[in-house]
Amino acid sequence: MCNDPGDLARYPRREERDLAMLEEAGCEVAWLPTVSDMYPDGFATTVSVAGISKRWEGEHRPGHFDGVATVVAKLLIACEPDVALFGEKDFQQLAVIRRVVADLGLPVEILGVPTVRDSDGLALSSRNANLSADERQLAVALPTGLMNAARGIEAGEPIGPALAAAKQAFIDAGFLKIDYLALVDAGTLEPLGEAAGNMRLIAAATIGHTRLIDNVEVSRH
Amino acid sequence: MCNDPGDLARYPRREERDLAMLEEAGCEVAWLPTVSDMYPDGFATTVSVAGISKRWEGEHRPGHFDGVATVVAKLLIACEPDVALFGEKDFQQLAVIRRVVADLGLPVEILGVPTVRDSDGLALSSRNANLSADERQLAVALPTGLMNAARGIEAGEPIGPALAAAKQAFIDAGFLKIDYLALVDAGTLEPLGEAAGNMRLIAAATIGHTRLIDNVEVSRH
Repeated sequence: MCNDPGDLARYPRREERDLAMLEEAGCEVAWLPTVSDMYPDGFATTVSVAGISKRWEGEHRPGHFDGVATVVAKLLIACEPDVALFGEKDFQQLAVIRRVVADLGLPVEILGVPTVRDSDGLALSSRNANLSADERQLAVALPTGLMNAARGIEAGEPIGPALAAAKQAFIDAGFLKIDYLALVDAGTLEPLGEAAGNMRLIAAATIGHTRLIDNVEVSRH
Repeated sequence: MCNDPGDLARYPRREERDLAMLEEAGCEVAWLPTVSDMYPDGFATTVSVAGISKRWEGEHRPGHFDGVATVVAKLLIACEPDVALFGEKDFQQLAVIRRVVADLGLPVEILGVPTVRDSDGLALSSRNANLSADERQLAVALPTGLMNAARGIEAGEPIGPALAAAKQAFIDAGFLKIDYLALVDAGTLEPLGEAAGNMRLIAAATIGHTRLIDNVEVSRH
């Protein structure tokens, strides 16, 4: 436990900064388990989620969501919180965590926190610091393209053309590699051929050397 | 929850019998979750344990210990017991469960319950009912062979000859197929080349059409 600002110096720079921000936000207690707290000698257990973990980010980062599911399950078991909050920016991660919590019956409510965006709409991310000034300006095409496509689909535009227009907008802005751009079921992350249920529009694309991800809600009226 | 004997008739024969035995043993509350309680719609999560799950029984029943680890984790999360008891007869299962509990940090003490044996030493098992009268008599070679080998190893006999003698005793008794017979580390279930640490002698072998498993402690003096 660390609830004494005097302890801050004990932690590496990043933890130190995070703890300072937590304190400023009114946090009274932070738990900083060590690696050996989390992964005791002989550690051999993995929590994995079929299906949802394999697509999109999972395809580009094999094993990534196994690590997420395992460590989040452990943290929730250790802390027994009533509520846990995860950002919607990593929408697939949020969906994986919701699935783990439902499947294991962990007694916690998972709340998604809406993505915080810059004034032009770009989602805040530590990766944005890697963008050149030019790239930073052009990167706004990612949220703009997603939002335009979402509004189009909501208005009844067919999905194929709506996604094609967004893709073209990404390319025009200078995104060189589009890993994925898809309308998916917000619960299962399975791609949708037509508008139905609770939907999300998700994308990952690279501008310069920086890979950005983003997603927006698609509401049915 | 079922704590009213009048409810017994609601359950299939096997559950009915188990509940009657529980009641006789002084059990006041039994929880009988349904399949859909345990595996809700869209269930996709697996708890798996590397290494220990793959050997011995795991080799003969692929995926078996994933199912065990997942359902036991769920039951422990749902019931939050202080103590949970598992028979030493399924020694590898007990070791897998201890690993899951340690790795996920589940707040429960796992206790192994010594194997209950018939007067001649055969471990009690529902499978024993499948043995013919002749097979039942000969089956005692399994625990006898294991116990003799364990005593030999404890007395300093080299492991190879001790295991070879046990194997020969199984074959002489009519065990046709010996899936495994090994001296293992009691925690990791890794085979041991020489006596060291906390050890267990484990075996699985088939007599007639019945596959039996058993294991005995090997103490170092």
